[in-house]
Amino acid sequence: MQASLNHYCLSIPPVDRQAGQEAARYLDTLTKPKGSLGRLEAIAVQLATITGQVKPRVSPPGIIVFAADHGVAEEGVSAYPQEVTAQMVRNFLQGGAAINVFARQIGALLEVVDVGVAQPLEASGLVSRKVRYGTANFLKEPAMSQEEAVAAVEAGIERAEALIKRGIKSLIVGEMGIGNTTASSAMLAAFLCGEKIRGSAELDTEVIGQIQGVVGPGTGLEQERVNHKRSVIVRALALHRPDGNKPLDVLSKVGGLEIAGMAGAMLAAAKHRIPVIVDGFICTVAALLAVKLCPRVSDVLLAGHRSQEPGHQVALSLLDKEPLLDLGMRLGEGSGAAVAFPLVEAACRMIGEMATFQSAGVTDGEGA
Amino acid sequence: MQASLNHYCLSIPPVDRQAGQEAARYLDTLTKPKGSLGRLEAIAVQLATITGQVKPRVSPPGIIVFAADHGVAEEGVSAYPQEVTAQMVRNFLQGGAAINVFARQIGALLEVVDVGVAQPLEASGLVSRKVRYGTANFLKEPAMSQEEAVAAVEAGIERAEALIKRGIKSLIVGEMGIGNTTASSAMLAAFLCGEKIRGSAELDTEVIGQIQGVVGPGTGLEQERVNHKRSVIVRALALHRPDGNKPLDVLSKVGGLEIAGMAGAMLAAAKHRIPVIVDGFICTVAALLAVKLCPRVSDVLLAGHRSQEPGHQVALSLLDKEPLLDLGMRLGEGSGAAVAFPLVEAACRMIGEMATFQSAGVTDGEGA
Repeated sequence: MQASLNHYCLSIPPVDRQAGQEAARYLDTLTKPKGSLGRLEAIAVQLATITGQVKPRVSPPGIIVFAADHGVAEEGVSAYPQEVTAQMVRNFLQGGAAINVFARQIGALLEVVDVGVAQPLEASGLVSRKVRYGTANFLKEPAMSQEEAVAAVEAGIERAEALIKRGIKSLIVGEMGIGNTTASSAMLAAFLCGEKIRGSAELDTEVIGQIQGVVGPGTGLEQERVNHKRSVIVRALALHRPDGNKPLDVLSKVGGLEIAGMAGAMLAAAKHRIPVIVDGFICTVAALLAVKLCPRVSDVLLAGHRSQEPGHQVALSLLDKEPLLDLGMRLGEGSGAAVAFPLVEAACRMIGEMATFQSAGVTDGEGA
Repeated sequence: MQASLNHYCLSIPPVDRQAGQEAARYLDTLTKPKGSLGRLEAIAVQLATITGQVKPRVSPPGIIVFAADHGVAEEGVSAYPQEVTAQMVRNFLQGGAAINVFARQIGALLEVVDVGVAQPLEASGLVSRKVRYGTANFLKEPAMSQEEAVAAVEAGIERAEALIKRGIKSLIVGEMGIGNTTASSAMLAAFLCGEKIRGSAELDTEVIGQIQGVVGPGTGLEQERVNHKRSVIVRALALHRPDGNKPLDVLSKVGGLEIAGMAGAMLAAAKHRIPVIVDGFICTVAALLAVKLCPRVSDVLLAGHRSQEPGHQVALSLLDKEPLLDLGMRLGEGSGAAVAFPLVEAACRMIGEMATFQSAGVTDGEGA
């Protein structure tokens, strides 16, 4: 790993378990049967450990959407043509995409970052940190060099730090990149199978089955084309044999520039003790990448929702996170996390604003 | 059924299926893969059928918390003493309860209505529609007369209509009433078992098992006292043999005044084509009551969350509704519905504000 990124990862502090214990005790003094707010109480405790505050705050949230293209898109692995990446970036900047709508609802600061869109893009409001014009087609060559991978991670760190300086109290990272469920499935397979991909001369049937199990329809492929997508990913992994224990090896061989940026933003959030609400499949793979770079990142992550993309559950299990929502969403852009945000805000307000039994003059229950 | 209430129920209009179909077609023109917003899309369609608008609105929401006491509380069926009902009403009026916190978060108009608290209550901001000072202990006599039951339902209708006149675009109903999971379980058992309770000379083992299955810990009873609560409910049902097909018979024999008020508010919402977000166990039993009074009410109901109280899943199944959230909450007051509200708001904003493929100049996908 490059020295500067390695140094950054080593500087990420642990969370504050004691603040979490204090929050848990305080929750039991509030005017409600103990534990009766379920997961909201667990969220409040986690937010206390992350922020070190018994009455944490998550507003205003920040949303960074990282956009980049994928050379592997030329293999026909997406239901949409590559030009849609740039078109959707313009839609983000005009405020018409789903993430814009949900960002307005939750009062979020929204930033759109070009880390690697395949065409030249200049538009008012767009932050350009283009590392290269899309990745290479990883069916033929590595997606990018390790230096490019690190540059994209560091672009993510820089943009998240900029938003944190502007005062955001929680972070959502989203993505746009035609072909990026293909890159994410390949990365997830590499993390999942580890030695079995790197070490053996030939991929055996069991490994191929595991790889295929984390590949799905993405934006809406029909079954025949999902099979083609699976074949592309299996061949790419057999070609590159990425080492699941070396996150930058996986990222550079079969990853994506926006996935790198998302992981970098999560590293920055962990460094500054800012909670991250994780979105769907691609974002969760970025979270796995960030956790591989620095395990402490895991403690600042909350899973926003369970995507319909089949690999998402596998990624969530590797991350050991249970999502807040399960609404059959599969859009990306950070939309599932943004829709989940009000639940996290509710947890904060609950612990921050509710009266105690004592202050309200309410008799506490025996069995409760 | 009393003539005035019967007349009101008959005046409730059907929803507008055509507006729903138009909304569904419009959703497929928005800049996202078709169906990729999952349940949010289904909510948008349902809201269109309810309101008749392809771009429906649900803000501002209104919340009415109905408070009342239960004579059966003297049997020791709750973890809290009866005085807590009045204490919590004061907490609501001072803004310190969970529902106050969540109401502020979602910008709701919040009203607290005393339909039957056991003690005299006068406080600034409290709406008094007291039908009687708590119900009778239904282990010994019917909870209330049919006239009182109708009066409590009509109080709910009146209060919801008042909020609707003030401009609310969606409704949440909550409750406070020590002992009200006992009344709700008894009512649910009567609806669930129907003829098997009303018709037979003696309750057989199977029916007793079904009744026991919808009784749980409420605010936090230990197992031994849950067993006692079960026994109280079985004995009450054996004594009164309510007719599950006659909602006012069930309500007056083993129900509660706040449950009646909640059902009345839902009737008013259906009459005025206002969506209702249903809260947990007690609220869902009130919804069943409302649907028994007028089946068309069902079309305006969205289930907010799945409570931990075991009877809730049974009530949801009878209502044929799938909740939006499953966070292990079990507080009542309308809190679960209020926490779910932002999802409904997100669905509205999505269909109301997103750009179309055409307006944004984005290429639509083939397979999507």
